[in-house]
Amino acid sequence: MLNRIYHLGYAVEDIGAASRFYEENFGAVPGEPEVVEEQGIIATMFRVGESRIELVQPTRLDSPVGKFLRERGEGFHHVAFEVDDLNVTLAELKRNGVEVIDEKPRRGAGGTRMAFVHPRGAFGVLTELVELPHA
Amino acid sequence: MLNRIYHLGYAVEDIGAASRFYEENFGAVPGEPEVVEEQGIIATMFRVGESRIELVQPTRLDSPVGKFLRERGEGFHHVAFEVDDLNVTLAELKRNGVEVIDEKPRRGAGGTRMAFVHPRGAFGVLTELVELPHA
Repeated sequence: MLNRIYHLGYAVEDIGAASRFYEENFGAVPGEPEVVEEQGIIATMFRVGESRIELVQPTRLDSPVGKFLRERGEGFHHVAFEVDDLNVTLAELKRNGVEVIDEKPRRGAGGTRMAFVHPRGAFGVLTELVELPHA
Repeated sequence: MLNRIYHLGYAVEDIGAASRFYEENFGAVPGEPEVVEEQGIIATMFRVGESRIELVQPTRLDSPVGKFLRERGEGFHHVAFEVDDLNVTLAELKRNGVEVIDEKPRRGAGGTRMAFVHPRGAFGVLTELVELPHA
């Protein structure tokens, strides 16, 4: 039911320095950073096989990623898995009593639908589920 | 130079409970848990696309994963990327002054060669590099 790792999100203090690290050491090609004002972040991505690494820097200290950095420091923030049918997956999680952040799918980037499972519900890993737009 | 996410390692308190979570909610098929005595862990894996999730439970409180759990709690522990040529990658990291845990490749499972980059050298993410055995 988990088709692939869609992306890993890393929280960083300096998205420019982190991008250069992956460029210089691993030949990665991060895209232009984009500001997502409602989430209080600036983010960029690069491809690794069928997955991506998303580098996320907070633009405000009180944003979720800003708080995460203050409490945990830089590092892994979340994983996103691609699923076929997010409604089916969320219904299964509900039936099994798993604690989720989003009971219903939210709209994600590029026409995707997404929902987060709470880290308390997934052995400490903030887990995003993504359904791609259908052709 | 990073070909794919080879695996994600999650540190868990109870590998049986974590395995059941991924089986029941996501149809994952974890393998038989294996004890790796010199690392003080018991581990199992399941496939997600071209990657795997590795669930790791410590068998001793003083093992590296045991200490990690005490200090950070359950959650993401490390990411492993497949590279073509680990010697070339390690030489590049050395030239760029990146802090690594293993200056030379170590032998990993299944004939692989592997080395860890220190989280301090990789923006807080414990990063393993894996070279597969050549045919």
